[in-house]
Amino acid sequence: MPKVITLLTDFGLRDYYVSAMKGVILSICPECRIVDITHEVPKFSIERASIILWAAYKYFPRGTIHVVVVDPGVGTNRRAVAIRTRNYYFIGPDNGVLIPAALDDGIVEIRCIENREFMRPRISATFHGRDVFAPSAAHLAMGKPFKDIGPEIKFEELVKPEVKLPWYERRDGSIMLRVVYVDDFGNLALSMEFQELIKLLGLDLGDIVYIDPGCRGLSIPCRVSRTFAEVSAGNLALYENSYGLAEVGVFMGSASKKLGIGEGDVICIVM
Amino acid sequence: MPKVITLLTDFGLRDYYVSAMKGVILSICPECRIVDITHEVPKFSIERASIILWAAYKYFPRGTIHVVVVDPGVGTNRRAVAIRTRNYYFIGPDNGVLIPAALDDGIVEIRCIENREFMRPRISATFHGRDVFAPSAAHLAMGKPFKDIGPEIKFEELVKPEVKLPWYERRDGSIMLRVVYVDDFGNLALSMEFQELIKLLGLDLGDIVYIDPGCRGLSIPCRVSRTFAEVSAGNLALYENSYGLAEVGVFMGSASKKLGIGEGDVICIVM
Amino acid sequence: MPKVITLLTDFGLRDYYVSAMKGVILSICPECRIVDITHEVPKFSIERASIILWAAYKYFPRGTIHVVVVDPGVGTNRRAVAIRTRNYYFIGPDNGVLIPAALDDGIVEIRCIENREFMRPRISATFHGRDVFAPSAAHLAMGKPFKDIGPEIKFEELVKPEVKLPWYERRDGSIMLRVVYVDDFGNLALSMEFQELIKLLGLDLGDIVYIDPGCRGLSIPCRVSRTFAEVSAGNLALYENSYGLAEVGVFMGSASKKLGIGEGDVICIVM
Repeated sequence: MPKVITLLTDFGLRDYYVSAMKGVILSICPECRIVDITHEVPKFSIERASIILWAAYKYFPRGTIHVVVVDPGVGTNRRAVAIRTRNYYFIGPDNGVLIPAALDDGIVEIRCIENREFMRPRISATFHGRDVFAPSAAHLAMGKPFKDIGPEIKFEELVKPEVKLPWYERRDGSIMLRVVYVDDFGNLALSMEFQELIKLLGLDLGDIVYIDPGCRGLSIPCRVSRTFAEVSAGNLALYENSYGLAEVGVFMGSASKKLGIGEGDVICIVM
Repeated sequence: MPKVITLLTDFGLRDYYVSAMKGVILSICPECRIVDITHEVPKFSIERASIILWAAYKYFPRGTIHVVVVDPGVGTNRRAVAIRTRNYYFIGPDNGVLIPAALDDGIVEIRCIENREFMRPRISATFHGRDVFAPSAAHLAMGKPFKDIGPEIKFEELVKPEVKLPWYERRDGSIMLRVVYVDDFGNLALSMEFQELIKLLGLDLGDIVYIDPGCRGLSIPCRVSRTFAEVSAGNLALYENSYGLAEVGVFMGSASKKLGIGEGDVICIVM
Repeated sequence: MPKVITLLTDFGLRDYYVSAMKGVILSICPECRIVDITHEVPKFSIERASIILWAAYKYFPRGTIHVVVVDPGVGTNRRAVAIRTRNYYFIGPDNGVLIPAALDDGIVEIRCIENREFMRPRISATFHGRDVFAPSAAHLAMGKPFKDIGPEIKFEELVKPEVKLPWYERRDGSIMLRVVYVDDFGNLALSMEFQELIKLLGLDLGDIVYIDPGCRGLSIPCRVSRTFAEVSAGNLALYENSYGLAEVGVFMGSASKKLGIGEGDVICIVM
C-alpha cells in the first residue's frame, strides 16, 4: 500500500516551490502518493494553517505523513520537528502549527529533525520545505525509523500556538465568540464546538437566537439548524460545520459579506 | 490498472474540503488515481460545472469515475445519483449537473445513492462530497457492483439542467447566440457547435462576418478561421474550439474584454 | 518505478484544459505520475515560464519528462520540439521556453515532434497541449524510443529566448540589474546569481548596500545576508534565493510592495 504524504503551505500555486517539494519527495520515494491540503494559507498565518490541518488530517489513511510549511522563521534558529501520534506523523517548523491536530490524535513521540541523512545534501537558508521537511517525510515513508530523525524532546519544549479552542466570554445575556475561520463560501466558523455551544446555551434545533456581529448591539435573527439549507435563501443559520465547530452561514450566500465581519472578529450570540 | 476518479467542485482550493474528499478516497481505495478537473466553478453554478464536465469527461480512461460536487441543495432532500454510461461513471447531486456529459456518452443505468455501505459511517448535513460522493466513487473503484449503490430510477425522474445546446434565435439578417462559457483567456464559447453554425449560415473558412456583442446594433468584423492565430494580434476570429463549440477569440488577447461581454450575454452574428 | 511527467502552463486552473491533458496522459500511460509545476504563468509569458522551469526541473527524478505549454503560437506553423538532456526530457513549443533549463542540464539530442503516432488521432488547431504535447510525453513514458518522435534538428535551428542571464550594466558607482521574477511573497529575484554578484561587487555577508528601485536616485539600506530572516521585520535583505539568484526580500513582508517595483523593472545597487 503506497504511503501518503500531504502538503499544507502558504506558498500559493504560482511559483515553483510546491513542485520542488514534490520532486524531492518522488526522488526519494517514487511510489508515494502526494496530496495537497492547500497552499493558499495567507502568508505566515500559523493560526489559519493549524485550523486547516486540524480539520483535514483525520480523513487520511492511517500512517499518512502530514507536512506543513508555514514558516516565517525559516533561516532563524527555530527547530524543525516531527511528531508521531496514534495514527499519523506530523512534520514542520516548531511554531505551534502542528499542535492542535497532533493533540487531537494523541501525541506519542516528538523529535527534532536533526539527522542530515533525512535532508538534502545542501540546505538553503530560505527553503526548508524543499531541503528539510519534504525529504524527511519521504525518508519516513520509505521506512527509515522515526527514532533516527533526531533527538527526542518533550511536549513542554515545543512552541505553543496562540489560539486555543474553545474560546468564549460570557456577557450580560449573551456569549461572545471569535470567528476562527471564514471559508471560501463565506461561512463563519466560531471558536467553540457546536455540541458544546448548544449545551452551554441550552439550545435546541429550531430555536431562534440573535446574532450581534462585532458585539456592537445589533440583533439579527438566526435559526439553530442542522444545516444552512434549512433556512430560506439569504437568512442566517447556526449549525454544526463539517469539522464540528459552531458555524454561522447563509443559504446560497455569504455570511461574511452579509454581516460584514471576518476572521479574528468577535460575534455575540444573544438568546 | 489503477482506477481513475476525477473531482469537479465549486469548493475552491483554499479550504480543507477537496483534500478531505481525497483522503476519504485513498482510505478506501489506496491505489486510486485522483485527478482534479477544477475546483474553481463559481459557487453554486450548476450550468458552468455541467459544461466543464461535458468538455472534459471523454479524455479520461474508460471506466473513470467522475465526481461532481456543485451542490447548493446539500442538506435538503435532493437525491444523490450515480449514472453509468457506455464508458464512464458519473456521481453527484440530482440537480442536472451530470446530464449533458452523461447523455453525450450514452446513459445505460441510473441509480439513487442510498446504500449506507457506500458512505461514511457518520453523514454530516453540509458536506456530502466527503461523506457520500467521494466514498461512493471509491467503493465503485474497489469493484463493488454498481447495482448495489441503490435503487434504479428512470431518466424521466432526474432533475434536468436549465441549459440546452444548441440555443439560437434567427433574427432579421442575423443569428443570436448565447455566450455559454468564457475561459481564462477570455475566449467566448457560444451556444452552438461550430460545424453546425457554419452549415446553418453557409459560411466557409476565410469568410468575414460581423459580431454584435449584446445585439445592440454594433458591427465588428471577425474572420471565420481554423484558429485565433490566423488573424493578426488584437483582431477577432470565429473558430471551432477544443471541445467543438463555435468560439470568438482574439489572437494574443481577451475577446471578453475587447467586446465587453461575458457568460450569459447574447451575441449576434451578422452576415 | 513509475515515470514522472510534469506540467507547466499558462492555462490557469479554472477551465478544463489541464485536466484534459492529464486524462490523455493517463489513457496512454496509466501508471504515470503527473506533477503540476504551475498553471498560473501569466498568459503568453514565455519568459516567466522559462525561469520557473529552470528553477524547478532539477528536483525531479532522473528521466522525468517536463511538458511546457505556454504557446501563443499554437495553430501557426511554429514547431513542436522534444529535447533530451543529460537527465531529463523537455517537451513544448519551439519558442525558447525550454532552452534555459535544457542548457543548464546539458542538451544531448533535439527532435521535432512530427510522428503522428505520438499524437492524438485528431489534432485541434487550438489545443496542442492535449493533442500533441501530452500524448508525446505519455508515449515516451511508455518507452517509445526518443528517436521515433520526429527528425533531429540542431540547436542553431531552435527559436531562442529573449532573456539571458546574467544581465547587468555597470553605472557610475553602482550596478544596474533587472527584476526577473517576483514570487508570491513579493521577493525580487534579480538577473544574476548571488555568488557571482557578491564576487563582482566584492561584498561579504553582513555588508550594507543601498538599493535604488527603478534607478531613480533613491538609496534604501539593505543588508547582504544568508537569509531575509537575518534582518528585523520590514527591513531589506540581499541574499541567495533557493535557486541561486540574488534576491531582495523583506522579512515578514513584500519587497515588491515596499519598493514599488515588479517584474521587468530595473534596480540599482549602490555601494
